[in-house]
Amino acid sequence: MATIKDVAELAGVSFKTVSRVINRSPHVRDEIRQKVLRAADALEYRPNLHARHMRTQRSKVFAFISDDIATTPFAGQIIQGAQLKAWQREMLLLMFNTGGDPAVEEDCVKSALERGVEGVIFATMYHRAVKLPKDALRLPLVLVDCFTRDSAVKGVVPDESNGGFAATRLLLEKGHRRIAMINADKKYPAAAGRYQGYQKALRQFRVPLEPELVRTGGWWQDDGYEHALALLKMQQVPTAIFCASDRIALGAYDALKEKGFRIPEDISIVGFDNQELLAAHARPPLTTMQIPYFEMGSWAVKQLIEANEDEDKTGAGLTKLECPLIVRASVDSPPIKREPQSKKKR
Amino acid sequence: MATIKDVAELAGVSFKTVSRVINRSPHVRDEIRQKVLRAADALEYRPNLHARHMRTQRSKVFAFISDDIATTPFAGQIIQGAQLKAWQREMLLLMFNTGGDPAVEEDCVKSALERGVEGVIFATMYHRAVKLPKDALRLPLVLVDCFTRDSAVKGVVPDESNGGFAATRLLLEKGHRRIAMINADKKYPAAAGRYQGYQKALRQFRVPLEPELVRTGGWWQDDGYEHALALLKMQQVPTAIFCASDRIALGAYDALKEKGFRIPEDISIVGFDNQELLAAHARPPLTTMQIPYFEMGSWAVKQLIEANEDEDKTGAGLTKLECPLIVRASVDSPPIKREPQSKKKR
Repeated sequence: MATIKDVAELAGVSFKTVSRVINRSPHVRDEIRQKVLRAADALEYRPNLHARHMRTQRSKVFAFISDDIATTPFAGQIIQGAQLKAWQREMLLLMFNTGGDPAVEEDCVKSALERGVEGVIFATMYHRAVKLPKDALRLPLVLVDCFTRDSAVKGVVPDESNGGFAATRLLLEKGHRRIAMINADKKYPAAAGRYQGYQKALRQFRVPLEPELVRTGGWWQDDGYEHALALLKMQQVPTAIFCASDRIALGAYDALKEKGFRIPEDISIVGFDNQELLAAHARPPLTTMQIPYFEMGSWAVKQLIEANEDEDKTGAGLTKLECPLIVRASVDSPPIKREPQSKKKR
Repeated sequence: MATIKDVAELAGVSFKTVSRVINRSPHVRDEIRQKVLRAADALEYRPNLHARHMRTQRSKVFAFISDDIATTPFAGQIIQGAQLKAWQREMLLLMFNTGGDPAVEEDCVKSALERGVEGVIFATMYHRAVKLPKDALRLPLVLVDCFTRDSAVKGVVPDESNGGFAATRLLLEKGHRRIAMINADKKYPAAAGRYQGYQKALRQFRVPLEPELVRTGGWWQDDGYEHALALLKMQQVPTAIFCASDRIALGAYDALKEKGFRIPEDISIVGFDNQELLAAHARPPLTTMQIPYFEMGSWAVKQLIEANEDEDKTGAGLTKLECPLIVRASVDSPPIKREPQSKKKR
């Protein structure tokens, strides 16, 4: 590869002049600048950016440290959102995958510091509390899809509660009054938040919460299948089910179909997550709530860029991003013959 | 942060001595080395790796350039495999997401060159031919899940043909003789390869290929659903269906269930891809072929490391990695009553 000396020789100027042009010094006549740039172009010369970083103290790199996002089918959009925003601002992401191991996390932070990254995005594959690795706070840091118990670090998570509210409100607005929820364990912030939203929507529509309509288990298809079977055995079958994940919803689909219930004619279903692979291609396509993965990734990079531009802006506190409703074909009005049942006073 | 001067001062040695210790020069007495390391430790001094890269000409970074892998639910393991192998060898990955745009690809390569990466992994979200961006070959380059038409660049792809062979052989060994295949368009190397394997297995078991049992369309659930419905309308319904993707298989599941066929008692199903989210959680869990994403990512990084260690090793040519069979619950022997039909001479 061509060196700065080759460029100087071809342009007929001194080494220092080439250096000035590369570093955008204003003290070079335009004519000379053009000469140097033409020579650099002809020789396909690339300035050594390591050297430039040395001078400017900027690596133009953020570290993206995550537990297992690359293998989580639905959280990869965090990376895409972060990358796109970074790219727009001429930053790049150095990827670290920790597998959730605290020792590896510490190593990653150390390695990121050594390489002079300008900020760290710490992201988890699902919404949860985290303990920060040692030294993580020595750099601007933004959390994605996770939070510290004391909220001392800036972070972004999905607005689970408003998502659960919007999902349940959709069903209420369609006229449903007997709405079951198949949830996961409330130890997960996502499950706890979505349930809060379900409760709030029922309250707002003055529909009493019926505890036997709320079922709790895991996040998976099997959980949805088993809980839906149990709901279908009730004397008064619900006319709608809000499922805390698309996987739960698809398990419920199987149970309903097996027992001869049509979706949405007999029972409406709303999911959560908008896992394209599942939700968009289910029969019928599943109405669900989108988790704003892309937006969270993009938001995080934006915060780091702003923190770098203005040190006062690092700050703390948790931001909640909206989970938009994705309308597909699994929600309809309740069947007329069941309508009176669902209005029965208990 | 502490500087090299602070360390020198605390250790009571010269700046140069500290520098020698950091750069692992052999010309330092052990006693002095210990003194410096203790001082560096006490001050939490971190050598400036940018500076070190300047000297050693090594960035210890590979570029990982991909079209849309981060958003492809099933290819993210390429990243994980690459990262793990890189981490083991003290390398890191700088991520580039091109969205498949050739202009962005060129920009990424340029940016990677400028930042002094030591090699490039160029990966695609599905197995396909690619045109390399300009200047990509100025660095050691390995392709993952893609290839150039002339195979002039080293690359790795799944062994689609052997995968299709193993899937079909499993069904043949179970006694099936009337085996349908629901495939995607053969313009995709994955579809073409899997079909080759299907043909080869039938030949090996001396089962004539019946063209009406081979159906071609898209990769999705809807495709599987429609094609399965058509197969179920045949006078002689197949006893097994090899589906070119898990998504196709799950669409076929829906059609079979709707028409009252049990899986695997009436009809056996094999998928392809092993998309955990779909295959492991289907009812019944789907027997399928794993695409070695993790292994391909890991393999690629290993090649780059070897190429860096020994320049003769860059090389060319396409490596095909095995697609292992993942046995779940969707395959059984053919139902006895259909057995004579399937042996009928045509």
